[in-house]
Amino acid sequence: MTIMMPASDQAVLDRRDAIVADLRAIVPGEGVIASAAEMLPYESDALTAYRQPPMVVVLPETTEQVSRVLKYCFDNGIKVVPRGSGTSLSGGALPLADAVLLGLGKFKRIREIDFDNRVVVTEPGVTNLAISQAVAHAGFYYAPDPSSQIACSIGGNIAENSGGVHCLKYGMTTNNVLGCELVLMSGEVLRIGGKAPEQAGYDLMGIITGSEGLLGVVTEVTVRILRKPETARALMVGFSQVEAAGECVARVIGAGIIPGGMEMMDRPAIHAAEAFVNAGYPLDVEALLIIELDGSSIEVDELIKRVEAIALGCGSTTCRISGSEAERDLFWAGRKAAFPAVGRISPDYICMDGTIPRGALPRALARIRELSEKYGLGVANVFHAGDGNLHPLILYDANKPGEMDKAEAFGADILRCCVELGGVLTGEHGVGIEKRELMPHMFSEADLSQQQRLKCAFDAQGLLNPGKVFPTLHRCAELGRVHVHGGRLPFPDLPRF
Amino acid sequence: MTIMMPASDQAVLDRRDAIVADLRAIVPGEGVIASAAEMLPYESDALTAYRQPPMVVVLPETTEQVSRVLKYCFDNGIKVVPRGSGTSLSGGALPLADAVLLGLGKFKRIREIDFDNRVVVTEPGVTNLAISQAVAHAGFYYAPDPSSQIACSIGGNIAENSGGVHCLKYGMTTNNVLGCELVLMSGEVLRIGGKAPEQAGYDLMGIITGSEGLLGVVTEVTVRILRKPETARALMVGFSQVEAAGECVARVIGAGIIPGGMEMMDRPAIHAAEAFVNAGYPLDVEALLIIELDGSSIEVDELIKRVEAIALGCGSTTCRISGSEAERDLFWAGRKAAFPAVGRISPDYICMDGTIPRGALPRALARIRELSEKYGLGVANVFHAGDGNLHPLILYDANKPGEMDKAEAFGADILRCCVELGGVLTGEHGVGIEKRELMPHMFSEADLSQQQRLKCAFDAQGLLNPGKVFPTLHRCAELGRVHVHGGRLPFPDLPRF
Repeated sequence: MTIMMPASDQAVLDRRDAIVADLRAIVPGEGVIASAAEMLPYESDALTAYRQPPMVVVLPETTEQVSRVLKYCFDNGIKVVPRGSGTSLSGGALPLADAVLLGLGKFKRIREIDFDNRVVVTEPGVTNLAISQAVAHAGFYYAPDPSSQIACSIGGNIAENSGGVHCLKYGMTTNNVLGCELVLMSGEVLRIGGKAPEQAGYDLMGIITGSEGLLGVVTEVTVRILRKPETARALMVGFSQVEAAGECVARVIGAGIIPGGMEMMDRPAIHAAEAFVNAGYPLDVEALLIIELDGSSIEVDELIKRVEAIALGCGSTTCRISGSEAERDLFWAGRKAAFPAVGRISPDYICMDGTIPRGALPRALARIRELSEKYGLGVANVFHAGDGNLHPLILYDANKPGEMDKAEAFGADILRCCVELGGVLTGEHGVGIEKRELMPHMFSEADLSQQQRLKCAFDAQGLLNPGKVFPTLHRCAELGRVHVHGGRLPFPDLPRF
Repeated sequence: MTIMMPASDQAVLDRRDAIVADLRAIVPGEGVIASAAEMLPYESDALTAYRQPPMVVVLPETTEQVSRVLKYCFDNGIKVVPRGSGTSLSGGALPLADAVLLGLGKFKRIREIDFDNRVVVTEPGVTNLAISQAVAHAGFYYAPDPSSQIACSIGGNIAENSGGVHCLKYGMTTNNVLGCELVLMSGEVLRIGGKAPEQAGYDLMGIITGSEGLLGVVTEVTVRILRKPETARALMVGFSQVEAAGECVARVIGAGIIPGGMEMMDRPAIHAAEAFVNAGYPLDVEALLIIELDGSSIEVDELIKRVEAIALGCGSTTCRISGSEAERDLFWAGRKAAFPAVGRISPDYICMDGTIPRGALPRALARIRELSEKYGLGVANVFHAGDGNLHPLILYDANKPGEMDKAEAFGADILRCCVELGGVLTGEHGVGIEKRELMPHMFSEADLSQQQRLKCAFDAQGLLNPGKVFPTLHRCAELGRVHVHGGRLPFPDLPRF
């Protein structure tokens, strides 16, 4: 499967030297990178199967510079691809040959820590983890915790509406972000939201969150911080059948218990993780649940007992309860290392990301097993079980002819299955280029047109991150006709590595 | 202060009889109301100071009828004002003389109760309370609980992003709605979201929630239901200084405790409520907090002790803890009846609705007291203290010349103060017509233009609920120019009663 991207604008490419010079006038010093060697690190994001050198990389340091760069590109019809730390798993920050790659890496300062209102105001290039570290001394933290939290930026978290193991209880990025400063493609600077939890007017913060860099460039973020729970303890529960583990998840939630995290791994994932980190995982089970309860000590003690009883009622075969912080960390170590661990047992793998209604978990797992047999490819399942967010890792060998195409077809079938079960193409990794072609499977033409009209309300010329999310780009004027037919842009192939 | 509304379209008024006949062909039987007497109940919503008979009332029963009515109006350039139960406090459902009033009152059926996925799929005319009642037998409920929950419709809750006393812990409407069916002004039907908590594409559900009927008409809703907490107990805590009560709120939240509800009343509100319902409120205090803790019995017992200790540390002078469900209900009875209770001590009152960052509570209260002296009008303060949502009730006598204008000026000053303190013009009652003119105080021209571009992405002709939310309506084509100047529509006066 090759990926189609918008045609390069030859007139822009012909003017490259002049454009680079103009950008240097806006962002002086080392803020403009134009040599092929220095641009290498920007050729892909974490979806490394696709690579493309950008036309030029610009690394502004101030909102004013971002605004001037965008206005310059707006006035001259030049495309722009925004980039945070480049940890996107769906190709959201993949460059275009004729576009400016706008990196926010120099926006690294935390501007304000306001404990009274329990918010942090920060620049978008600050990493997710750095926010928690900056408030840890006072017993606070920032809740969403994607696996990439050491590296991923808070601006990128907003673009992708990132989740993490604790999002079951504490929400996704969209539930933890209160406001931002947004620069539109026109260069206009908007202030959206603020420290107060409710806002007048349309929920612009909600649209920006998860918009994958297609609507504007975030230059400041206000996030909510939470007080660290007094205690957290985890159960590690094994089951001889995957369905029983699914039933346990449903019963815990059904009992009104919202764990801080509730993660499931199947047999291949358990074995891979255990071989990698020696977390003490049982190897004779088909499914393992890690369930973390947090709150006051007395509350956690009681919840542990209730969850243990529920697990037993679902036929759990093993159950260990963490007796110390070190043991709790060990339970999680295997889960957190599951992706690299699977990388050790298979030459290559694709990490899929889809969601299903919790009640459909057993059906989804059965279907994935059927597909695994049909395609003759192994699969290791790791998922945020509590909120129905699946991460099947499809195992393949890129050196065997045809296996990569089979793996991609397998992945697409899993996502179609998620949609058929009433779920969604993506849980937290975004659509990007990876799932772009699957969007019509989930959305009707009317749905997609409405989403694109919304895009037009922010970026009428379609200059910001084109080729991502939408399989077909319509001109905004055509969308005004409400019923849209045709209007496809010519898409040449983009090389894949 | 008179309120300006868009000019009536004489060409539409001249065609009224033909329009009524055309609408009767779409919605047969008693679904079209055109006589002045029968249209009387639709002349205003709960902001009763403003009244306006609509051109015609249409009460469709199916999505197809809604779609056909909207398409007919779209094709013929006829304005439409959607209406749920008409309990809006900001005039969101106020009719226009040349507009179809589209009532959703016949959409009264709950379509599906799905306990496995913990959602209810319902028609928009179902009341907020009816949803909780429909799932109560299984121990579930729908969390947002506006004071009007017996009457207000879930569709109206979406339009206003309604809150309630339990929203501190369980979120506003936007946090509890997962999907909807939306009919655009063009008649196109979109399906937005679904049962899964995360969604691909832009967060359309987020924009629709709180959009005050300007973007589309909701014909089906999927809401999240929660399991009822095992126990709920309340503390009633009195303070001799309002500031001490504010400090107590901050310390409870700062300690990482999120009460199910945390409400504050000041002396005038306490006295009015106690005289009305005999809840046993202390009359010798300046501020009263009602703090409800919910969860498992063991957890609630512990939290009660911690909150009591915090309150004592802040200098509380009285503290009672509910020992039974009946006593807890009694604590709340006074708070829930505060609005009608204040109606008994003053001929007229305006209920304001603004939010501030929690940390600014003492400053906001001091400013409201200053303004009360400046205007010579009493004020009773009732608020959702936990999330900084103020509801000052401004007391006046409409029979005294000039008092109503003074009260409105006082209210506007309070909202300006909220914005200056980093807060927002509205917490949960919407902008509607009431706060429309204050929008530029909160938003820059660029902000308002961006919100209107978003409106244009849904309703390019501006036919849906015009005159609400935005002080100035721009034509969508003008907004395309990005920088907007002028372009005001001619607004004649609307009579006020």
